[in-house]
Amino acid sequence: MTLARVVGTVVSTKRSDEIPGARYLIVEPCDTSGRGVGGSLIALDSMGSGPEEIVLISQGSSARQTEMSDQRAVDAIIVGIVDQIDEANVVTYRK
Amino acid sequence: MTLARVVGTVVSTKRSDEIPGARYLIVEPCDTSGRGVGGSLIALDSMGSGPEEIVLISQGSSARQTEMSDQRAVDAIIVGIVDQIDEANVVTYRK
Amino acid sequence: MTLARVVGTVVSTKRSDEIPGARYLIVEPCDTSGRGVGGSLIALDSMGSGPEEIVLISQGSSARQTEMSDQRAVDAIIVGIVDQIDEANVVTYRK
Amino acid sequence: MTLARVVGTVVSTKRSDEIPGARYLIVEPCDTSGRGVGGSLIALDSMGSGPEEIVLISQGSSARQTEMSDQRAVDAIIVGIVDQIDEANVVTYRK
Amino acid sequence: MTLARVVGTVVSTKRSDEIPGARYLIVEPCDTSGRGVGGSLIALDSMGSGPEEIVLISQGSSARQTEMSDQRAVDAIIVGIVDQIDEANVVTYRK
Repeated sequence: MTLARVVGTVVSTKRSDEIPGARYLIVEPCDTSGRGVGGSLIALDSMGSGPEEIVLISQGSSARQTEMSDQRAVDAIIVGIVDQIDEANVVTYRK
Repeated sequence: MTLARVVGTVVSTKRSDEIPGARYLIVEPCDTSGRGVGGSLIALDSMGSGPEEIVLISQGSSARQTEMSDQRAVDAIIVGIVDQIDEANVVTYRK
Repeated sequence: MTLARVVGTVVSTKRSDEIPGARYLIVEPCDTSGRGVGGSLIALDSMGSGPEEIVLISQGSSARQTEMSDQRAVDAIIVGIVDQIDEANVVTYRK
Repeated sequence: MTLARVVGTVVSTKRSDEIPGARYLIVEPCDTSGRGVGGSLIALDSMGSGPEEIVLISQGSSARQTEMSDQRAVDAIIVGIVDQIDEANVVTYRK
Repeated sequence: MTLARVVGTVVSTKRSDEIPGARYLIVEPCDTSGRGVGGSLIALDSMGSGPEEIVLISQGSSARQTEMSDQRAVDAIIVGIVDQIDEANVVTYRK
């Protein structure tokens, strides 16, 4: 999985997924302190994630292993909201 | 998913997919303002996308989760046309 | 899919795929004018592609969605021979 | 598979995987001597890995081929703990 | 597929794959002359590959399409031993 920060939203009314109420969020991959490292990815939100939250992103076919995304053309999904990150026994991020 | 701009078309009459009337579009990945970031990808069009539109691209096995691409050797497909992008509560792109 | 130019061949008599007569071609990813951008990939040829042709490459599990590659350990395959490429309404490549 | 060093942990109580007691570890890809090469990845731990251990990471759909991760939205998992690495007949890492 | 050179071995007695006698080899991606281009990947050996041989690597779900790797958490496997490479009608590598 990849650590990322929620930075925005994408509005797309003409979509092939046919998921009612689907939210597509812009996430920026981040380091273990929650600092963005550049680039962006569009992920389906299955967790009710809010702006600036640090989340776990699952990609590829694994992004389809949720009830919401099963058999949908979705290749990235938010699968967890991060509470805390520890690196070398030091807390580097806390929500 | 990846944000991209439609920049061209590829004509290929000798193909293994056997999808009648399939359109293969050249898309350039773009940032959250719709500016191209270089590189290109060839995506099957399932949405009737037009030139210069900003679209959502799904890749890998997820690209086969549409009626058009099911069981076809397609690894990138346009799954949505973007109407608006918001980043940090600012509209960065509007169609 | 990825645009690429056929630049060579790989001979491998000891293979696990057990596809009789399989041809493995070296392809170099190229831009929309057909100019190589460096790097190389080995793709199974399902189209009878010739040297210097510009082709479409499908990768990952999608590379197994042809009769030849079904259930084989193949992760890249030539799925189309490109006749013409148009970018911003200009023909950038013609076979 | 990828060689990586276990460098930390991610705590996420709100997750979609519903795996009781799942441990998500931060791993940094490393070279054949076990030295980190930068970047990080979040992998599910199926092996009881400890801090600073060198592990094998499997990614993509292959990450779901364990009892713990079957049909879960997991795209990276620790599949082995490395005891020794040999390169050009020299031991470059020993646990 | 990717061209790579066999450069070493990884010993891991605690693994989740439960493949008896499995050999995990370190391979370095190489160019069409067989020269390494840096980086490394750990691939399951299904071919009895020896040190310094040039091999074909298949990755992702395609790596599970062999009898040895079927339903195992393996994302890279050696699927061929390369005898000869030709580029632009010149032999660039011969075993």
